[in-house]
Amino acid sequence: MRDLIYYVASSIDGFIAGPEDHVGNFIYQGTAVDNYLEELKSFDTVIMGRKTYEFGYKFGAVLGQPSPTYQHMDHYIFSDTLRFQTQHEKVHVKKMDIGEVRKLKESAGSPIYVCGGGMLAGWILEHGLLDILKIKLNPLLLGRGTPLFGDCQKEFKTELLDSEAFENGLQTITYKINYGAADPG
Amino acid sequence: MRDLIYYVASSIDGFIAGPEDHVGNFIYQGTAVDNYLEELKSFDTVIMGRKTYEFGYKFGAVLGQPSPTYQHMDHYIFSDTLRFQTQHEKVHVKKMDIGEVRKLKESAGSPIYVCGGGMLAGWILEHGLLDILKIKLNPLLLGRGTPLFGDCQKEFKTELLDSEAFENGLQTITYKINYGAADPG
Repeated sequence: MRDLIYYVASSIDGFIAGPEDHVGNFIYQGTAVDNYLEELKSFDTVIMGRKTYEFGYKFGAVLGQPSPTYQHMDHYIFSDTLRFQTQHEKVHVKKMDIGEVRKLKESAGSPIYVCGGGMLAGWILEHGLLDILKIKLNPLLLGRGTPLFGDCQKEFKTELLDSEAFENGLQTITYKINYGAADPG
Repeated sequence: MRDLIYYVASSIDGFIAGPEDHVGNFIYQGTAVDNYLEELKSFDTVIMGRKTYEFGYKFGAVLGQPSPTYQHMDHYIFSDTLRFQTQHEKVHVKKMDIGEVRKLKESAGSPIYVCGGGMLAGWILEHGLLDILKIKLNPLLLGRGTPLFGDCQKEFKTELLDSEAFENGLQTITYKINYGAADPG
């Protein structure tokens, strides 16, 4: 089974973006970010939600094509509405059917990079399919915006696997999700 | 000027309690907690909101008396409604007037322990008076509950001062709030 790894930048208070997708105060340089970009090379597959795919357009992504940063990966975009006129052979659109995520997990390949956004990650978490949460914890309080796991409101225990602090205040913290471990609220 | 230090347990996704104040899956033992209890001895003053003071009743606190864990501290409880029939000389009720917090900051004594809850901490943060955020980061996703800073929705940059990971997955992470440093959203 391939691990699903949600590798994501978050604020201290658990937001992956501020209001209107504002991410201007997140940190995009330094060792933690270099490590992240280096680790991306080890993934052959990325899955993301429609909004996250479309968010890439702001940064030069082209409709139906792989995201520039993840060019070497097969893209699986989960959306019930997205359609392309033409699309690259590495770009696949899948319906919001959790069975499709399960199929990917059971197929051959590297661990799978869950790019986001919060809604997609929350959907995968709720279905017990997310294995690893790897947070680039930014020294930032946002107060509002897009929650780490969208509108998922369930409680989950995790296991801390690794934590590293960097020169610019970023930390990379890795957790394994422990399904079934949380006491009911 | 005395530092105001918000020393608080939080989930990965930024909640200090789950729905209906559920905190059953937070970790209450191990080195991080021992360190916290040891550090509490260095504070001569604690401030808290009414709900946080009343939350202590569940754990044996007595109306108008100091909280058992903070017995050596002067208590300042911020509330516009709280009244006691009798109260201990170390227990003071203050109106929700930010000038009262400022006065405490300017008085003589140790740094001040901001016990919580989220609403009180958010109110102090919004007014630019919180100096340090010290999080006992629990390996836990709550999904909903009481946010770290209540309903404060402003953005703040912080500086990472220290980070330590412990045997049971708890981390103690210390940030200094950098007022005026965040770019507007």
